[in-house]
Amino acid sequence: MLIPQPYLLFLGDVTDPLAAKTARGIQVWRPEQCIGQIRLPGCAVSLGLNDLSIEAAVAAGAKTLVLGTANAGGYLPEHWLDTVRGAIKAGMNVASGLHYRLADNQELAALAAEQGVALFDIRHMRPALNVGSGKKRSGKRVLTVGTDCSVGKMYTSLALESAMRDIGLKADFRATGQTGILVAGEGIAIDAVIADFIAGAAEALSPANDADHWDIVEGQGSLFHPSYAGVSMGLIHGAQPHWLVMCHEMHRPHMRHLPHQPMVSLADCVEANLRAAHVTSESVQLAGFAINTSGFSEQEARDYCQQISEEFGVPATDPVRFGIKAIAALLKERG
Amino acid sequence: MLIPQPYLLFLGDVTDPLAAKTARGIQVWRPEQCIGQIRLPGCAVSLGLNDLSIEAAVAAGAKTLVLGTANAGGYLPEHWLDTVRGAIKAGMNVASGLHYRLADNQELAALAAEQGVALFDIRHMRPALNVGSGKKRSGKRVLTVGTDCSVGKMYTSLALESAMRDIGLKADFRATGQTGILVAGEGIAIDAVIADFIAGAAEALSPANDADHWDIVEGQGSLFHPSYAGVSMGLIHGAQPHWLVMCHEMHRPHMRHLPHQPMVSLADCVEANLRAAHVTSESVQLAGFAINTSGFSEQEARDYCQQISEEFGVPATDPVRFGIKAIAALLKERG
Repeated sequence: MLIPQPYLLFLGDVTDPLAAKTARGIQVWRPEQCIGQIRLPGCAVSLGLNDLSIEAAVAAGAKTLVLGTANAGGYLPEHWLDTVRGAIKAGMNVASGLHYRLADNQELAALAAEQGVALFDIRHMRPALNVGSGKKRSGKRVLTVGTDCSVGKMYTSLALESAMRDIGLKADFRATGQTGILVAGEGIAIDAVIADFIAGAAEALSPANDADHWDIVEGQGSLFHPSYAGVSMGLIHGAQPHWLVMCHEMHRPHMRHLPHQPMVSLADCVEANLRAAHVTSESVQLAGFAINTSGFSEQEARDYCQQISEEFGVPATDPVRFGIKAIAALLKERG
Repeated sequence: MLIPQPYLLFLGDVTDPLAAKTARGIQVWRPEQCIGQIRLPGCAVSLGLNDLSIEAAVAAGAKTLVLGTANAGGYLPEHWLDTVRGAIKAGMNVASGLHYRLADNQELAALAAEQGVALFDIRHMRPALNVGSGKKRSGKRVLTVGTDCSVGKMYTSLALESAMRDIGLKADFRATGQTGILVAGEGIAIDAVIADFIAGAAEALSPANDADHWDIVEGQGSLFHPSYAGVSMGLIHGAQPHWLVMCHEMHRPHMRHLPHQPMVSLADCVEANLRAAHVTSESVQLAGFAINTSGFSEQEARDYCQQISEEFGVPATDPVRFGIKAIAALLKERG
């Protein structure tokens, strides 16, 4: 693991619960790695964790302070610096998902060097990469794909990891975005690599493994999103998936942030993703659908999932509402 | 134009004609921008241009010294430095397609600053970019795509620009690779941008234009190449092409550098590219095929092109052997 766990989650003084999305993701998926939270006066958000001082967190074993909130603009506010300095001085590493680089702050960089701790700028971590080779490798891989951005690919991947472990499978989540990387403690922010290395990054992220081991690779973007399809395509080729899980939001009116861009049909999206995956993985199949139905009643959601399941002959579920056991069971049965 | 022309082409002391590919491309496509060549003792390659000293080239109007050869490893050999220093001292800019950055050489950087000239590291030029929007824009655009890498997409794009200008069309080549950028004097090395910005880079490269203006966008990679398909995909979406020209090498046995990766069929490749382009350009059509037939007799080449032309109902030609007038004519006629 690259980023030492457990964490102390820093929430700053944010007032919008959505701003704490990253911290909340870590707390939901790795509660055992969250020692506590630390907040500044005026903070209106809580994760329900114990409020700890730096000293108390270190005493309880915290290894890394995580800047788990995004302020508008992604910079590091001046009045957050004292907490960051305090953590470094107390021997903690610091991990940040901000656009702003901790490592560019000379005072923090010098302090970290002096204390022998690391600063992790998640958005800017650039491992040395090769271009993708497409060579076949051992182990089983599932990739979450989507009709659009922000349809629950990370949530689905983590839920699937959990459901697969519950039924005795060796499954590991492979993170491609900043929240996922903080949850897993490692990973590659795939949208931040140089374009030529997208597929190579996905190969490095999910290397050859035991024949009965499953990598659950977190998807990004959509083949049908005009901004990010290149990332999605390279990730599909590099992940070399045996199974795809299609993520979707029920009745979303248009592609995210692009009112002029119509949504793709589920059938076209499934077909395009299977064709793309086929380039490096001839036997790739669809394992099911993970659908965000949060805008609808439970009955509407059940009807919608059932209709899709019948149309495509695979499980369709809202992982938040109904869990994802059916897809995990299919993967166990059909391997 | 970003990189001042005309050029003095530096060939170093290479002995392999293939190493001078970039210089040769510039000389073929922009002979009027090539003042001469400059070579070191032992150089076994010539472009047939006048051998000029730095002083003679400057006197003849040369604005930029182009490092137009690639040595193995892409670094800048110590014994090439004197020529680079001499050019800077004589007031010339220097453009390099090497992996090595001229700007990382403190002595050269200081000298260039002192002389008020620019160092262009083509592979590392990173304009400030936005993510792609997919919003419709005016002007006509043609994109070259391919069954594989290195099947003649740059050559085809430049040949098409020339053939379209010959029949009175307003056509501009838009460069996405280093040789193309040196030919055009501007462009974006699209495989070197951050993954999230591939489509945005393609949009910036071929902005809105007059309704009767044609951008000929240089394609990269292939949707079926396991290393580079992400770049190809983002470029297809961002270029928002009205027409595609499919580039292909006759009877290539497998994907470039990947003996384990079978070639895609032309029909599958055309369909996948049209589908991908359709996401941002509903009316996209196939304009024809540009086929590298260099390994075969003229009769075999003609038969092969004719067979493909009949199968797909569009012109198929080897632009090197037979020219590309038929595709230019189709574009003029059908707009």
